[in-house]
Amino acid sequence: MKILVIGGDAAGMSAASQIRRRQPSWTVEVFEMGQRVSCALCGSPYFISGLIKDIERLVAVTPERFEKERGIKIRLRHEVTAIHPARKSLTVRNLDSGQSREENYDRLVMATGAEAIEPKGLEAGPAGLFYLRSLADAERLREAALGAKSAAVVGAGYLGLEITEALVRAGLSVTLLGRRPAPSFETELQNMAQMALARPEVTFRPGLEAVGLARAAEGGLEVAVSQGRPVRADLAVVGAGLRPRSGLAAAAGLALGDRGAVAVDRCQRTSNPFIYAAGDCAESYHLVSKKGAYIPLALGANRQGKTAGLNISGLREKSPGVLGTSIMKVFDLALAGTGLGLEAARRAGFPYAVKTVVRQPSKPDYYPGGSEVVCVVIHDPITGRLLGGQLGGTVDGVGQRINTLAAALTAGMTVKEAAGIDAAYAPPFAPVHDPVIIACEIASKNSGSGGGTRRS
Amino acid sequence: MKILVIGGDAAGMSAASQIRRRQPSWTVEVFEMGQRVSCALCGSPYFISGLIKDIERLVAVTPERFEKERGIKIRLRHEVTAIHPARKSLTVRNLDSGQSREENYDRLVMATGAEAIEPKGLEAGPAGLFYLRSLADAERLREAALGAKSAAVVGAGYLGLEITEALVRAGLSVTLLGRRPAPSFETELQNMAQMALARPEVTFRPGLEAVGLARAAEGGLEVAVSQGRPVRADLAVVGAGLRPRSGLAAAAGLALGDRGAVAVDRCQRTSNPFIYAAGDCAESYHLVSKKGAYIPLALGANRQGKTAGLNISGLREKSPGVLGTSIMKVFDLALAGTGLGLEAARRAGFPYAVKTVVRQPSKPDYYPGGSEVVCVVIHDPITGRLLGGQLGGTVDGVGQRINTLAAALTAGMTVKEAAGIDAAYAPPFAPVHDPVIIACEIASKNSGSGGGTRRS
Repeated sequence: MKILVIGGDAAGMSAASQIRRRQPSWTVEVFEMGQRVSCALCGSPYFISGLIKDIERLVAVTPERFEKERGIKIRLRHEVTAIHPARKSLTVRNLDSGQSREENYDRLVMATGAEAIEPKGLEAGPAGLFYLRSLADAERLREAALGAKSAAVVGAGYLGLEITEALVRAGLSVTLLGRRPAPSFETELQNMAQMALARPEVTFRPGLEAVGLARAAEGGLEVAVSQGRPVRADLAVVGAGLRPRSGLAAAAGLALGDRGAVAVDRCQRTSNPFIYAAGDCAESYHLVSKKGAYIPLALGANRQGKTAGLNISGLREKSPGVLGTSIMKVFDLALAGTGLGLEAARRAGFPYAVKTVVRQPSKPDYYPGGSEVVCVVIHDPITGRLLGGQLGGTVDGVGQRINTLAAALTAGMTVKEAAGIDAAYAPPFAPVHDPVIIACEIASKNSGSGGGTRRS
Repeated sequence: MKILVIGGDAAGMSAASQIRRRQPSWTVEVFEMGQRVSCALCGSPYFISGLIKDIERLVAVTPERFEKERGIKIRLRHEVTAIHPARKSLTVRNLDSGQSREENYDRLVMATGAEAIEPKGLEAGPAGLFYLRSLADAERLREAALGAKSAAVVGAGYLGLEITEALVRAGLSVTLLGRRPAPSFETELQNMAQMALARPEVTFRPGLEAVGLARAAEGGLEVAVSQGRPVRADLAVVGAGLRPRSGLAAAAGLALGDRGAVAVDRCQRTSNPFIYAAGDCAESYHLVSKKGAYIPLALGANRQGKTAGLNISGLREKSPGVLGTSIMKVFDLALAGTGLGLEAARRAGFPYAVKTVVRQPSKPDYYPGGSEVVCVVIHDPITGRLLGGQLGGTVDGVGQRINTLAAALTAGMTVKEAAGIDAAYAPPFAPVHDPVIIACEIASKNSGSGGGTRRS
C-alpha cells in the first residue's frame, strides 16, 4: 500500500506516524510546501517576544528523525497542485526545481491546514507587512521587530492579542486595530481583555478597522483605518483569522462543509472513499452542537490526524470530537473557553440558553496570592444541560480550571451535576467552593426568566 | 418547628443556614462546644507559619452575623451530653455555668465533627504536646513555636506534612515521625514527598514511630520512638489522623457505618427518622465504590450539611457523593488525588485494577517555567473505567489538573473517554497533550497483563 499525505504539520505527521507504526511495510510519503515539518507555530509569539531564543526549539521532530526513526518519506518544498481522484493520483511540483510529476496513491490524507484571512487592502506582499503562517514568517518578523519602534497589529483575536504582547515585550509600541478584543468570548471577558490592553505601550481603539496600507513618505507604513487618520508604524502584522486551505479538495470534487472546510465523518473519511482529511483544512465534530464545525486548533488536529492514520491502517476509530477548548494569555490576563458561547448556543438549537456570570476568588481570601476569577457558564434551562463555559483572570487563577468544564461538557453533564463535582480544596490552591463549581451551582438556579443573564 | 444542631462548623452551619433560608419561621439553634463557629481550620497551618497574621481571618462568619443576618441562635461553649430519641430531646451543658438543661427538637442535626486520633503514649494533656483541633489550638501552637527552636511532628499524612512546613517557615527545625510520607498516595508520589522533605531543617526517617512522651531532664520534651534513641524537641505536634466523633450518636442508638461514622443515606438521614447527620461525624457516599466511606473533608462537609438542611426543610435533595478529592502542598511539592488508589480499588471490588504512571512536562519544553508532573491513573482494564488518579509536581504544575480527573470520575468515564477530553492548550499553560490526557491515553492501552503497572 502506498499512502500519500499532503501537508507536514500536526495532522499530516500524526497520520503518517500512526500508519507507519501500525503497518511498517507500507510506503508513507509526505509532501510539504515549506522547509520544515511538525512545527509548534503556537509557540512563535514567544520567539518574537524574545522569550524563546532559538526557533529550532519550536520544531517538535525534524524531517531527518521522521525519516530515520519512523520510516516516513518527507518531501520538503513540494507543492501538490492537483488531485486526480479518478485515477487515484496527484500532481506534485518540486518548488526548487520547478518540475512537476504525478504520484499514485492507494490512500490519500489531506492535511493542507489553514490559511490566514487577508483583509481587503491588506493582502500579503508589501515589505513591512507580516502574516504569521510559518516559523520562517516568525523569523522574519522577529528580525524586523529588532529594528523597529512601532507596529500596527490588525485583528484583536487570539493571534492579534498574542502578537501585541510579543511585540511590546520586544520593545515596540503597538497600535491594535480590531472591532472588539477577544471576540470569541462573552462581553464580560472582552472587557477584561480591553483592560489588559490599557498600558502605555499599547493603543487600542475598539471599533477601528484596518482598510488599506501604503508606504509612508517619511519611511515605514501607513495603515488606513475605517475612521480618522491613518496609523503610522514601522511594521504591520495581520492576525485576522483563519480559513481552511481546501481549494485543492474542492477542485477534486470533495464535499465541503462548515465554512468551506473539507467535510469528514468521525473516522476522518471525506466524500471520496480513498481520501481522508484531518486538521485545519477539515471540519471537526462538535460535541455540544453534534454538528460539523470549523475549529482549527492544535490538539484537534493531532487527534484527527491520528484517527485518519488508524482508520487507514485498518482499525475503526472515531475522533473524540471537539469543544473548541482554548486558552490564551495577553499580558497579565488569561482567558479560556470551552463549548458554546451564548449566541452560538442559541444558534445551535438551544434558543433558551442562558448565561450565568460569577466573580469569585481563586483562593480563600485569607490566603495570600489569590485573585478574582470571572467564570461564565452557558446552559439550557429546559434540560439543565451545560453548553459552554469561559474563564478570565490571572494565568494562575484561570490555569487548568477550564478543563473541569471541558470534562463536564464531554460527559454531557447538567450544570447541577457539574456543581456536584468533588473538587480539590486546600488554601494554597483553591477555596472550598471553587469558582467553577459556584458558577455551575448558581447556573442550576438560573432559569433565564429574569432576562437571560444572572450575575453573582 | 424547632431544629437543633449539634456542632457549629461547616456541616452544622450549612444545615442551619439552609433551614432558616427555606423556612424563615422555624427556630434553629446551634450548640457548639468551642468559642467560635464556622472556622477554616484547614487554614491554620498558614497561621502557624506566620503567613496569615490574624487568626480571625480564618473565621468565615461570626456568631453575631449568623444570629443577626440569618436568625440562627448560636450557643457557644455548650456541650450536648446525651440525646433522648424516644422523647426527641437532648441534654446540653453550659460549659461556663456548668448547668445542664433538656431541650426538645422536632428535627436534630448531628454535626459533631471528627476528633484527632491519639496514638498510645501520646494522649493529649502534657505541656508542650499539641493537637490541632481548633483555632484556639492553632493560637497556642503559634505562641509556643515563637519561643521554640525544635519540634517533633508525629504523623506524616496531610496534617503532619503541612505542620512540618509551617513550623520550618516559623524558624524551627523539625523531626518528622511516621511510617511513610503521604501514605494515602501511591509509592511514586510518596517518594516525591520524601524528596521534598530532604532539607536541612527537616529530619525524616521513614519507619520511625512515636510511642511515648516524657519531659526531658534539660527542659523540653523527649519523644520515645519505636527504634533507637528518643527525639528531643521543644514541642511536639500530633497529626495522626481523624476519627468520627460519634459517641453521642452511638449512645443514642443510631446505626454506625464505615470506621464508626454515623450511617446516613444520601439525604443525610440517620437510622432515626428525626435525626440527620452531616460532615466529619458521618459517612459519605463514594461515587466510585458506590458504598459508604469515611472521608472527613471540608467540601463534602459543607455539601452534606446543606443537603441535610434542604431535606429537613421539606425538599428532596441528594448529596452529590464524594471522590475523596484532596490536594496538599509541602514545601515546593504539590500532591493531589481523587477516587481510589490501587489497593483501595482492588479492595472495593475491582480486583484487576491496574496503575499507569506517566512523567510529563507541565508546559511545552520550549516554554520557560514548566516542570515535571507525575500523573498516576488507576483503572479497571475489564471495563476501561477510570477509578482514580493522582498527581505530583509543583504547585503550578499540579494546581487544578486533579479536577479534570474528578470530573471524569463523576461522569463514570472510561480512561479512553477521559483521554478524549478536549483540553486547553497554549504554551504558557500546558503542552498540546496534557499530562492528565497522556496518562489516560496510555492507561487505555494498559491491560495490566504485564504485571499491573505500566510506566511511560
